[in-house]
Amino acid sequence: MRHAAQVATKDATEKAASELQAVLVDLVDLGLQGKQAHWNVVGPLFRAVHLELDELVDDAHKWADEVAERIRALGVAADGRPGVILRESGIPSVPEGLIGDCDVLSRVGDELTAVVARCQAAIEHLDGRDKASEDILIGVIKGAEKHLWMFRSQHA
Amino acid sequence: MRHAAQVATKDATEKAASELQAVLVDLVDLGLQGKQAHWNVVGPLFRAVHLELDELVDDAHKWADEVAERIRALGVAADGRPGVILRESGIPSVPEGLIGDCDVLSRVGDELTAVVARCQAAIEHLDGRDKASEDILIGVIKGAEKHLWMFRSQHA
Amino acid sequence: MRHAAQVATKDATEKAASELQAVLVDLVDLGLQGKQAHWNVVGPLFRAVHLELDELVDDAHKWADEVAERIRALGVAADGRPGVILRESGIPSVPEGLIGDCDVLSRVGDELTAVVARCQAAIEHLDGRDKASEDILIGVIKGAEKHLWMFRSQHA
Amino acid sequence: MRHAAQVATKDATEKAASELQAVLVDLVDLGLQGKQAHWNVVGPLFRAVHLELDELVDDAHKWADEVAERIRALGVAADGRPGVILRESGIPSVPEGLIGDCDVLSRVGDELTAVVARCQAAIEHLDGRDKASEDILIGVIKGAEKHLWMFRSQHA
Amino acid sequence: MRHAAQVATKDATEKAASELQAVLVDLVDLGLQGKQAHWNVVGPLFRAVHLELDELVDDAHKWADEVAERIRALGVAADGRPGVILRESGIPSVPEGLIGDCDVLSRVGDELTAVVARCQAAIEHLDGRDKASEDILIGVIKGAEKHLWMFRSQHA
Amino acid sequence: MRHAAQVATKDATEKAASELQAVLVDLVDLGLQGKQAHWNVVGPLFRAVHLELDELVDDAHKWADEVAERIRALGVAADGRPGVILRESGIPSVPEGLIGDCDVLSRVGDELTAVVARCQAAIEHLDGRDKASEDILIGVIKGAEKHLWMFRSQHA
Amino acid sequence: MRHAAQVATKDATEKAASELQAVLVDLVDLGLQGKQAHWNVVGPLFRAVHLELDELVDDAHKWADEVAERIRALGVAADGRPGVILRESGIPSVPEGLIGDCDVLSRVGDELTAVVARCQAAIEHLDGRDKASEDILIGVIKGAEKHLWMFRSQHA
Amino acid sequence: MRHAAQVATKDATEKAASELQAVLVDLVDLGLQGKQAHWNVVGPLFRAVHLELDELVDDAHKWADEVAERIRALGVAADGRPGVILRESGIPSVPEGLIGDCDVLSRVGDELTAVVARCQAAIEHLDGRDKASEDILIGVIKGAEKHLWMFRSQHA
Amino acid sequence: MRHAAQVATKDATEKAASELQAVLVDLVDLGLQGKQAHWNVVGPLFRAVHLELDELVDDAHKWADEVAERIRALGVAADGRPGVILRESGIPSVPEGLIGDCDVLSRVGDELTAVVARCQAAIEHLDGRDKASEDILIGVIKGAEKHLWMFRSQHA
Amino acid sequence: MRHAAQVATKDATEKAASELQAVLVDLVDLGLQGKQAHWNVVGPLFRAVHLELDELVDDAHKWADEVAERIRALGVAADGRPGVILRESGIPSVPEGLIGDCDVLSRVGDELTAVVARCQAAIEHLDGRDKASEDILIGVIKGAEKHLWMFRSQHA
Amino acid sequence: MRHAAQVATKDATEKAASELQAVLVDLVDLGLQGKQAHWNVVGPLFRAVHLELDELVDDAHKWADEVAERIRALGVAADGRPGVILRESGIPSVPEGLIGDCDVLSRVGDELTAVVARCQAAIEHLDGRDKASEDILIGVIKGAEKHLWMFRSQHA
Amino acid sequence: MRHAAQVATKDATEKAASELQAVLVDLVDLGLQGKQAHWNVVGPLFRAVHLELDELVDDAHKWADEVAERIRALGVAADGRPGVILRESGIPSVPEGLIGDCDVLSRVGDELTAVVARCQAAIEHLDGRDKASEDILIGVIKGAEKHLWMFRSQHA
Repeated sequence: MRHAAQVATKDATEKAASELQAVLVDLVDLGLQGKQAHWNVVGPLFRAVHLELDELVDDAHKWADEVAERIRALGVAADGRPGVILRESGIPSVPEGLIGDCDVLSRVGDELTAVVARCQAAIEHLDGRDKASEDILIGVIKGAEKHLWMFRSQHA
Repeated sequence: MRHAAQVATKDATEKAASELQAVLVDLVDLGLQGKQAHWNVVGPLFRAVHLELDELVDDAHKWADEVAERIRALGVAADGRPGVILRESGIPSVPEGLIGDCDVLSRVGDELTAVVARCQAAIEHLDGRDKASEDILIGVIKGAEKHLWMFRSQHA
Repeated sequence: MRHAAQVATKDATEKAASELQAVLVDLVDLGLQGKQAHWNVVGPLFRAVHLELDELVDDAHKWADEVAERIRALGVAADGRPGVILRESGIPSVPEGLIGDCDVLSRVGDELTAVVARCQAAIEHLDGRDKASEDILIGVIKGAEKHLWMFRSQHA
Repeated sequence: MRHAAQVATKDATEKAASELQAVLVDLVDLGLQGKQAHWNVVGPLFRAVHLELDELVDDAHKWADEVAERIRALGVAADGRPGVILRESGIPSVPEGLIGDCDVLSRVGDELTAVVARCQAAIEHLDGRDKASEDILIGVIKGAEKHLWMFRSQHA
Repeated sequence: MRHAAQVATKDATEKAASELQAVLVDLVDLGLQGKQAHWNVVGPLFRAVHLELDELVDDAHKWADEVAERIRALGVAADGRPGVILRESGIPSVPEGLIGDCDVLSRVGDELTAVVARCQAAIEHLDGRDKASEDILIGVIKGAEKHLWMFRSQHA
Repeated sequence: MRHAAQVATKDATEKAASELQAVLVDLVDLGLQGKQAHWNVVGPLFRAVHLELDELVDDAHKWADEVAERIRALGVAADGRPGVILRESGIPSVPEGLIGDCDVLSRVGDELTAVVARCQAAIEHLDGRDKASEDILIGVIKGAEKHLWMFRSQHA
Repeated sequence: MRHAAQVATKDATEKAASELQAVLVDLVDLGLQGKQAHWNVVGPLFRAVHLELDELVDDAHKWADEVAERIRALGVAADGRPGVILRESGIPSVPEGLIGDCDVLSRVGDELTAVVARCQAAIEHLDGRDKASEDILIGVIKGAEKHLWMFRSQHA
Repeated sequence: MRHAAQVATKDATEKAASELQAVLVDLVDLGLQGKQAHWNVVGPLFRAVHLELDELVDDAHKWADEVAERIRALGVAADGRPGVILRESGIPSVPEGLIGDCDVLSRVGDELTAVVARCQAAIEHLDGRDKASEDILIGVIKGAEKHLWMFRSQHA
Repeated sequence: MRHAAQVATKDATEKAASELQAVLVDLVDLGLQGKQAHWNVVGPLFRAVHLELDELVDDAHKWADEVAERIRALGVAADGRPGVILRESGIPSVPEGLIGDCDVLSRVGDELTAVVARCQAAIEHLDGRDKASEDILIGVIKGAEKHLWMFRSQHA
Repeated sequence: MRHAAQVATKDATEKAASELQAVLVDLVDLGLQGKQAHWNVVGPLFRAVHLELDELVDDAHKWADEVAERIRALGVAADGRPGVILRESGIPSVPEGLIGDCDVLSRVGDELTAVVARCQAAIEHLDGRDKASEDILIGVIKGAEKHLWMFRSQHA
Repeated sequence: MRHAAQVATKDATEKAASELQAVLVDLVDLGLQGKQAHWNVVGPLFRAVHLELDELVDDAHKWADEVAERIRALGVAADGRPGVILRESGIPSVPEGLIGDCDVLSRVGDELTAVVARCQAAIEHLDGRDKASEDILIGVIKGAEKHLWMFRSQHA
Repeated sequence: MRHAAQVATKDATEKAASELQAVLVDLVDLGLQGKQAHWNVVGPLFRAVHLELDELVDDAHKWADEVAERIRALGVAADGRPGVILRESGIPSVPEGLIGDCDVLSRVGDELTAVVARCQAAIEHLDGRDKASEDILIGVIKGAEKHLWMFRSQHA
């Protein structure tokens, strides 16, 4: 039941879906870790960080949806269940309990760096064979790097 | 750093937070499982189930936020990270891959039943000692049972 | 096909649904009587009473929906057909024809008093066994008593 | 206290109001029966039918208001109380209890057919003597026949 | 430069425009008199009457625009200048200075009665030869008679 | 499967649907020709004409929907496919390539004149036997003649 | 029944109201003349002038309301009836019938110049004794001169 | 830490802030007294007065904010605490308990008169040396006198 | 003139109103103190604290309205005048003049703690005899404790 | 009058416009066929398919506008007239008359597959020489393949 | 082509325009410098300062438009081109490269102080001869001093 | 402090930022020149050009923000100060004083052509090494060429 890319071979389609699935896992985890930090951050910058994380989580949800729906458009099932996230996520986890505001800024920066790296790898692996997927990944990179700038500027 | 319920003992506060934490885990998992089904459902009822699941996921996110923020208001850290979800969730998981529309209706019904049961147990354990937490849990039950009616009516 | 309250006995569920059904009848009738007065009121306070009744009817519709959907969540069918309203409503009817503004204020006050009494009786009969239903009924009482204050203040 | 149609005789005005009153009864009943089905429908088409019925009920309320206010503009009192509805409604009632989705589609089709017939009869009886009332009735027919098409198409 | 009604004779078009012009004059005057009363009304019903008059003036402006644009669509110029209003308006003027609230209710009722009469005469003169103009006039009658009901109900 | 007009004969219903189908073809074509001119217009009045055409196209789409849905309400299928448009449209086409602004004003005027004529013919053929269809056609005439006035005024 | 400016003498208050009344007459007339031109303008600039005039009329209505309400706040009745407008307006009238676009631009410029002059005279006569009225008049001048710039730039 | 008016002397700045502080106290009190009356008014005009008072309280809050922020812009702290209000407010208090609608109209009139007088005194004391503060005070006078007209018209 | 709780004794009603009145006083004071701090806060966290306080003041106004309207629904007059606030408020006041950002965070925390304590005491005194009032108080506690978490997290 | 791509040769520009023109034809036809199916679909999935088709038609209109405006930006005229559509469209037509819901799902799937293929061919022919056009085409592919997934999932 | 102030001499008009032109230059520069700081600020207060600067830039754009449009209303051309800004701006520039958050707070304070001084000088030079221009300048001072308070409070 | 593109070399990042900086300068200048023309345009097309320029300036501001934020995401400071604009802008300036409408159309066309050329050069220099920056530049080209078409069509 491949829907998209009917002109491409079955192998190319599965390859693209598999790259997107790896990104999906990171984005779902970004949403979970971001919410965790949103709830547990403490310190003088509480309000600023608390609000920024909510914007980041909203973006992570939106990007995950776009990526998962593209996987489905390629005729493959998407997987965002907790076991898969735990096993395959490439982004570092925030620790248990309350977290200081500066610590959050630093850790979220590392998470975003990991997401960007994963997207760039996926774009390279796609090698220009699936422009629509590439376009979605470029959108994630653009957005993630903008958040990265903001978190880093605050931590400068 | 207990914020709320200063008139209560430290033990009572920790007890309440621990009950809410158990509910939080189920609600975060409900959001993840609901999104999984939203992406992978197939069958003639695709559109109806796809849309209903998005409304359910929105509610799950809103409820999880209310519960986590109440835990924080009790002076305790909340925990919604994937490892915790995987280990402690009380709701059954949807399977890997595509899922038929009727299968989704049935499985989501079971998930909602589990959420309601967990909330009712929490209310009983609170035993009227934290009215504000109880009020949040009643809100979750009311909403979850309304979704349950709708999924069950479709599957009747 | 009981959906909610799976931990409760079948009897308790039916009891709760039956209490809610009695309230539903009064709320549907409140909507019909309110509309009747909205159309037929005359007198210097015409505009004020005409507008207040529209707000009351909107609330009556909203409350009836919440109560009926809770009955369905308990796995029971709701009944709001005209024959049932005529036979079982506990609220006094407005008379045929045009009605003076002061007369409307007084009659709607009596209708709201009847609705509040029915809800309070239902809460007592539920006896704390169905917190979600109780929560809906408290919401109706809060709202009805606020309208009551306003109608009574105008008639003071 | 006839307001409208001062150029017409008193008899013609009362005749027009009486035709509109007959339509009003059907429209109020359409709202009640539609809500009844909205709550109690079951089956695979639950979501579609549940939502369509809410749109139909909103239209029925809006049309009833327009008709009742036109009756008042003719200087006559409107009557939408449950006893009047039960005694004079021309539309068939839905049965007690849960109702299958296809059964609902068929029954609402019959109700809408009855409403259209009543409006057409009223237009004929008005015989062009009250253009403003006629205009309101044509609006009801246009809307009711559009709903009819949709319910029938689903049941084809 | 007749735009509309190309199938009609030039005479019929001019006749229709002339009927609409007579209505336009009344509607512009209704807006001026309504504003005058809106500013100068006094008495316990001040707020109710003050607000109702603003709604009436908004409707009068909207109707005047529809009528004038229809005249233009018939290829004729519209005329709403003060001299024309003063010379040709068929509606009674409100007096100079402050006006009691009951006096306003009664006078506006008379103005609306005059507007309705003028529209009905115009419809009769059109004699079904210009359905689009007739449709606009019916809309004015429907709206004016609804305002009339409200002003009269308050003055009952 | 006639839905509407059950009191009418089958012949009358088919006659009405056939009149509406002729109007539908013109309205779909008006939308296509309007978009063509919207894209290709050049000249000092570019912006004014470009924007007016978008408003005209939006109206054409809305009217086409109303007419097609009325055809369906009469139990007949509607037809707006390109072959039918090409074969049966009564409105003149705009030429290939860029079009001067004044040329557009003149041509769109002719298209609107054709639409109005077709609607008037349809109303005459209906001969008062289907008031709901007539009401829709009068709405199209009112709107088309208003656009006509505006295009003609600019070209005066 | 002077409301405002209780610290001022009765004479000063009446003087201020009389200055505002003169401005009110011009503003009501500006609204009537602007609407007249809005309906009857023809020429290549039709759309631009037609839209600008609607914005001007909206401002004229808003300013007239502010001025009339200030007169009432001074405890004096306002007068905007057609006879008063015809007799006392200081702005030139547009002619009967269709009007070319350039002619409209020129005439509206003259009307706005007259309004500004009247406001400036009123401010001088007030001589700083009623700051609140002065503030309203400055707002009218600012707005009228901005419209004036736009009409003049188009006519340059 | 003077921010504004660096070109002015320190004395002039403190003088301006002190005038504004006196107005602030009245405006905060106006909000409190208005809310008190909003809750406790009774009588046939209940709805009208109840709604008007809410609009007045919204304006009082907005004006207090503007005045307090101007005080801060002058580099001085603002003071709106209850002790200051009680000690320094220039407006008469409404009495304890329920208040008849006519009594409210009269008392609120007196409060607004006091607010206007205080603003006018402040403008005089500023003597044109702080145009920005003067502009804010003129805005309060304009608004307060408009409310005054309305309350007085109702009580005429 | 008791409106609500007609089935309850007069004493119980007065007791409930008196508990709510004590809460009302604190909530009105919370609004005044919050505004005071909103205006006078200084320090690096100025923007964050300034914005948070505005959200807190909005909630305080909304809660005060709900509590006062419930008091009225119980047939008793509410009292929120400055003298009553000064005499009976249970929350500590912020000092005169500018206040450092950290000081504000700490003081507002103490105010919220006092509000929560007062609500909890009121709930205990009501002893389950007035569910609707209890529901309003639980809502205040939930909201106040959420604000408390946020202010405390920033000050951690 | 080439506007865009001034750095490119005239040939390259014409080549790009010609590729876009081929896509435009398919998109205009997709809008027409989609509307045709929207009106004439019947079957239990009526409501779902009817609504999905409206979303598809909205997207088709939006995409056609983007493509046509890009053609114009390349300095070439766009062509979307019915004769061109009929002669050059690459997407299969829906048949005359009513169409079953499953048949619609299958046919629209084929239409979307054709649109995607045409866009992919166009991207290949552009060969990276016109990035802005390519970007628009990738957007169409992304959207069309998402609709394709949804139609196919329902038909699985 | 002087539009405004026709009663004033040509000299006075040119004088006023020249004062406004000097303010315009500062406001355009304030927008450019504000954007520069918005992009390049770093430090813990990043988010607060970044957002505040966007609000300041929006205000600067709005004020520049008001001032430039007033210059045009006086019949003179406005000048906001980069060469003019560079040569005539009275506000200090922010330095090249990244800027610490406290440094931004201090520098923007200086810029706002310069803007206020320029406006005050302009008002003095106008000497009450152009009330409308004066009113615009007072609006700029009010707004700039409010921003100044906020930036200074954060830097206290 | 490079944030983005961590996998790229430092040189490549600086190269990309330098290309974007050149585009930023043109976009800021486009905003300034566009505003200049928006204020000073005269002629019959005044309204059309005045409005189009405002839309262009809004786009220029939005694009400048996207480009500057991308520069920051690359870890480099952005520079949009007037001296830099004057020295490095590649777009021709509009002249001092009033400008005829046709002259504006021609000049803005030249400015947009320069912006497009600069973006195309930047894309070539990036040579596919920074897809996110390329994506932003393609967006600017698409938008600028669409404006170009519109300005050119008006000037055709």
